[in-house]
Amino acid sequence: MTNFESVIASLEKLSFTPKSLSHEAVADNKAWIAALNTLNVDQPYKVTKTLILKPKTAKSAAPTPVVVIALDATETNATAIGKKLGLKDCRFANEDLLKDTFATTKDAVSPFALSNVADLSLVHVVVDSEILALPATETLAFHPSASDKTVFVSADEFKQYLASINKEFVEIDFKALAAAKPAPAPAGGAKPKAKKEAKKDAGAAEEGHQMGIEAKKNVDFPKWYQQVLTKSEMLDYYDVSGCYILRPLAYNVWKEITNFFDGAITEMGVEDTYFPMFVSNRVLEREKDHIEGFAPEVAWVTKAGSSDLEEPIAIRPTSETVMYPYFAKWIRSHRDLPFRINQWCSVVRWEFKNPQPFLRTREFLWQEGHTAHLTLEGATEEVYEILDLYEKVYTDLLALPVVKGVKSEKERFAGGYFTTTVEGFIPTTGRAIQGGTSHCLGQNFSKMFDIVVEDPASDSSDPKKLHVWQNSWGLSTRPIGVMVMVHSDDKGLVLPPRVALTQAVVIPCGLTAKTSKADANKLYDACDDLAKRLKKAGVKVKSDLRENYTPGFKFNHWEIRGTPLRIELGPKDIQMNQVTCVRRDNGVRFTIPVADLESGVKDTLETIHNDMLQRATAQRDASIIRVEKWEDFVPALNNKNLILMPWCDRMECEDDIKERSARTDDDEEEDERAPSMGAKTLCNPFQQPTDKPIVPGITKCVACGQDAKHYMLFGRSY
Amino acid sequence: MTNFESVIASLEKLSFTPKSLSHEAVADNKAWIAALNTLNVDQPYKVTKTLILKPKTAKSAAPTPVVVIALDATETNATAIGKKLGLKDCRFANEDLLKDTFATTKDAVSPFALSNVADLSLVHVVVDSEILALPATETLAFHPSASDKTVFVSADEFKQYLASINKEFVEIDFKALAAAKPAPAPAGGAKPKAKKEAKKDAGAAEEGHQMGIEAKKNVDFPKWYQQVLTKSEMLDYYDVSGCYILRPLAYNVWKEITNFFDGAITEMGVEDTYFPMFVSNRVLEREKDHIEGFAPEVAWVTKAGSSDLEEPIAIRPTSETVMYPYFAKWIRSHRDLPFRINQWCSVVRWEFKNPQPFLRTREFLWQEGHTAHLTLEGATEEVYEILDLYEKVYTDLLALPVVKGVKSEKERFAGGYFTTTVEGFIPTTGRAIQGGTSHCLGQNFSKMFDIVVEDPASDSSDPKKLHVWQNSWGLSTRPIGVMVMVHSDDKGLVLPPRVALTQAVVIPCGLTAKTSKADANKLYDACDDLAKRLKKAGVKVKSDLRENYTPGFKFNHWEIRGTPLRIELGPKDIQMNQVTCVRRDNGVRFTIPVADLESGVKDTLETIHNDMLQRATAQRDASIIRVEKWEDFVPALNNKNLILMPWCDRMECEDDIKERSARTDDDEEEDERAPSMGAKTLCNPFQQPTDKPIVPGITKCVACGQDAKHYMLFGRSY
Repeated sequence: MTNFESVIASLEKLSFTPKSLSHEAVADNKAWIAALNTLNVDQPYKVTKTLILKPKTAKSAAPTPVVVIALDATETNATAIGKKLGLKDCRFANEDLLKDTFATTKDAVSPFALSNVADLSLVHVVVDSEILALPATETLAFHPSASDKTVFVSADEFKQYLASINKEFVEIDFKALAAAKPAPAPAGGAKPKAKKEAKKDAGAAEEGHQMGIEAKKNVDFPKWYQQVLTKSEMLDYYDVSGCYILRPLAYNVWKEITNFFDGAITEMGVEDTYFPMFVSNRVLEREKDHIEGFAPEVAWVTKAGSSDLEEPIAIRPTSETVMYPYFAKWIRSHRDLPFRINQWCSVVRWEFKNPQPFLRTREFLWQEGHTAHLTLEGATEEVYEILDLYEKVYTDLLALPVVKGVKSEKERFAGGYFTTTVEGFIPTTGRAIQGGTSHCLGQNFSKMFDIVVEDPASDSSDPKKLHVWQNSWGLSTRPIGVMVMVHSDDKGLVLPPRVALTQAVVIPCGLTAKTSKADANKLYDACDDLAKRLKKAGVKVKSDLRENYTPGFKFNHWEIRGTPLRIELGPKDIQMNQVTCVRRDNGVRFTIPVADLESGVKDTLETIHNDMLQRATAQRDASIIRVEKWEDFVPALNNKNLILMPWCDRMECEDDIKERSARTDDDEEEDERAPSMGAKTLCNPFQQPTDKPIVPGITKCVACGQDAKHYMLFGRSY
Repeated sequence: MTNFESVIASLEKLSFTPKSLSHEAVADNKAWIAALNTLNVDQPYKVTKTLILKPKTAKSAAPTPVVVIALDATETNATAIGKKLGLKDCRFANEDLLKDTFATTKDAVSPFALSNVADLSLVHVVVDSEILALPATETLAFHPSASDKTVFVSADEFKQYLASINKEFVEIDFKALAAAKPAPAPAGGAKPKAKKEAKKDAGAAEEGHQMGIEAKKNVDFPKWYQQVLTKSEMLDYYDVSGCYILRPLAYNVWKEITNFFDGAITEMGVEDTYFPMFVSNRVLEREKDHIEGFAPEVAWVTKAGSSDLEEPIAIRPTSETVMYPYFAKWIRSHRDLPFRINQWCSVVRWEFKNPQPFLRTREFLWQEGHTAHLTLEGATEEVYEILDLYEKVYTDLLALPVVKGVKSEKERFAGGYFTTTVEGFIPTTGRAIQGGTSHCLGQNFSKMFDIVVEDPASDSSDPKKLHVWQNSWGLSTRPIGVMVMVHSDDKGLVLPPRVALTQAVVIPCGLTAKTSKADANKLYDACDDLAKRLKKAGVKVKSDLRENYTPGFKFNHWEIRGTPLRIELGPKDIQMNQVTCVRRDNGVRFTIPVADLESGVKDTLETIHNDMLQRATAQRDASIIRVEKWEDFVPALNNKNLILMPWCDRMECEDDIKERSARTDDDEEEDERAPSMGAKTLCNPFQQPTDKPIVPGITKCVACGQDAKHYMLFGRSY
């Protein structure tokens, strides 16, 4: 059997008959296309190319060739492919390698040569995403193992072939790869290159089609994060850069946050509103300090249909200047205070830094509360009340610890009076993340927008006007990203039970070929009964009764999606009147008597929540290092820690610390695995150390030696 | 006492001492400003002007002068003012009128002349909104009743003066008035004038500061609608045309709709998602028929910060083409079906027709459900299930009747297979309104986007691909507008109890100057107790214990805001162990024993809901006219009715009916009170008349005489 015949045979084994045509022998794709054009092919087709590359390996090591399957029109780039796969110096393979490993020749390489490879474990396979995106019936032309023959298969048949060789492949979106060179960071007022704007995310390139997570959390964190998000079906990438699709698994977390927080603020007397997403330039620019902070990121609508608008209209980046003119109109008396409104909406900040799902996106969902008070005391009380609710979102829903505190002058909200924050922590990168902020705006905006009431404390014969005291506070979908980064593992997503769309899944086990249909049905029914009982008890449960899937497949399916509890039911369990449970968070396996199903499952879900919170807290606590001399600062930072130390509370010192703790010059293109940026202040924690309290005039700032005012938390930050 | 002295005296009565300066006598504002400039005024001030106009009245009737108070810089326009007030031929008043009615002269007119008017009921007062918008401390220069004197008062003092004369005034935004000439409707592909775009709504001009609704529902419906919305504090106008602020009263209606509908679809297995609001042009244009329907209204983002985007990015007008490429990716097997997602979001359709709050807005909130099914039957079943939920939103929450049916070919969704609808009705205008649509998209989009599964019915050795059957269904904030238009009255908003932010308000009554402080406190405490009991029982209740406000003021306050039930508690009620209740919907007054408070109030709220639904249904039913000959069609239509008649179901006939029933040529600028547009098909009602069923081949279409297929509902429509 010739090579060509063996290829045809292997395709026929897949039960489709490839159409093949003969033509003159050709040396390269150009000649091949010319030859095809002389033939009378009775349907449209796309020409492909297959490249075999050889990365550099130690001389004694076996070669690890890379087979790249792409459309002929796609610009492949050997260096980029190598970089993507983490392989060095990818060059075209020589004839020996082609012959020895693939049993083919340079002018007749095709994907079907993979069938000839004895040990596929050493081979990397890369498939052009353009091929995978083709409609199933589209025809592809391949050049299989003979330079004078072409075989035509449908895109779907090609995928079946790929599946049949039982080898994981990597999908690459070459167009995105070409476009994904990081945009230069806008230095100062410099105009960032708009060229990259409409291109796909780099990330979009990497959706593998395999089930498991390929990247390791501790080795390639960014890739791991992306795979956890996409393979768990939390999120999908989108063709507008910096925008992502929140799939039900992710959106449900947001719904739980919404339900909790909206309930709590309604109880406080806050009322929900909806202001338009559009803002006129005139209104946007009313508060100068404030808008300076947002102007570079504002998206502008300039056209409707085919008409230009007379004036560009902005999409809100936040709503202070949108709402406050109406505060001035609506608040007529001190009896209208406190005046408190909130809205759930999306805002747009067209950042030019690298986007990252949940953490830095161009459109994001959030709530923004805006309130007015008669006194600073009233306003302040609310600032802390809201901050406590934000903390509860983290601890009580997402099982994550936060540090509560006040932002430094440098880091506080543009145009505000003081900013309080909940700060999260990602152990794998050693970076902090601002998790939600509750601002007291003071009277700055009320003076700007003339939001006044008659001071009830003033003499009624000589009433005094009083500018109201304002707050604003916002929480976005960002905590979802923190949740994924902290809890998830190399097997995929790990969801805290209280925000899981599916808290438990029931899977029938132990069926064999010998099991009778009746026995199988009995098991399925039993699983369904368990699920019904749990649903009635308020557990979000599903039973996975899909036939044709093994229990192992289902375990993986629900594991990668972070389902907190797996409930297995097999003949032995039925016999013992029990279910077997496996916790997603720690893999522990145990049984629950069927009689105690509801309480057993609900208690377990609570335990999982508490354990997850405790683990994350212990890890975070171990990463807050008390530093007493400057020499220890940078090493602690580089060791992925946050730093707590006596500080002078001066902006100059903060700038200085940032500079002295940066590894290189201010390089905006961060390496996620070894961030080199300088440390920022995170917050002045409400909970100050009590073992060595600051002694005014005695305790010195660790960074500059001036008098310390309090302990400050520093760290690299998202 | 001279006129000037009397003015000063009347200002002093208000307990502020106006600063006044003398100067040469001046004949007009130009000379006055020149004179002021020679003086050494020690603070900045704004010069005002006061005009007295006389509209045309019958000779024998008493004159009804109009006093216009404006900034000198404001361009006032007598014709426009007259139009605004509904008065004819406003000319400058002659000296006699000035002298007889205002005791002043042409060169010394000021607002303070109003104090001289014996009977203010005949006088109209108009105040420039620029004056009302001034900061309270801004200084205004007036020219009070003496051509050689100027008085300076603060904007706030001026407002106090206005309040002191106890005369309602009309605020006019002259700038908006000048800008508010309706934009010409874009005929065909003609480019609409972009000039008007960024200007304020005409509506924004008309927020009166008076408490009551001035317009009558049956006389000036558009003005009435606007006043009900703004004075009830449901909604406020906004400086981007076609966008409105949903205040808590309105947003709460949406929240109730959301809670109900989201709960119901979750139970059905639909899952919530969030797709980005931005769409690339490439994706937007994938389905041609579909996008043709939306293209003229798409808003485009072309800039971010100061950079131009490489490609304009659209804001979603709806999400079919945004979502379906991902359907193709996510739906891999028939086991994934039905695949059902929904999102709550805002969409943008930059309409150039006159905007109208809730009914036609450029940004609106909605939900959009998108689902995929294995079979047409499965899809169809869901279409009707959703339509039933939409009906429930109207009947069970908003106390409104709808007609369910199928849209004609002409009116169905662009790119869809068939469209079902719930049609509402506004009796005052006699116009129908599409209230929510549930579409079966057939396989059009699945073929376009290649959303396929393996047909499980096909032989597994020869599997066939099957394009999924799709639906989409959407409900916006529009029902809120229908609710206001149908239920509200000349006193203001009437809210159906199930969507009211405040369902009942407790108001202490019967306090007099003689009531002791202790007795007053006792009454307040008793009111609070009632409110607490009701709150505990699940009633959304407030107690209005504001001092310094009369019960009458509070009655009006809660009445205009549509509060379904007022609960009065006075000394007599306490004595009788009862509360006195007044229903907002029909004004009926009755008592409830305090012992039965909770059940009495809750039952009443249910009764109010049922009565409101019943009244609206009876009114709607009386407005559906069965027409059997064409001559009756237009008269019935002009009589504010909908028409139900046998129809041939042909698009040509529909076009013909529209043309024959239009009063004038297609005039896009509709007069709300007497719409002249032609009749459209509303729907083919599921519930067909049974008394005279269509007999195939015998019953003829009333419009064209061809064979009738079914009864069709026609009407003028929003």
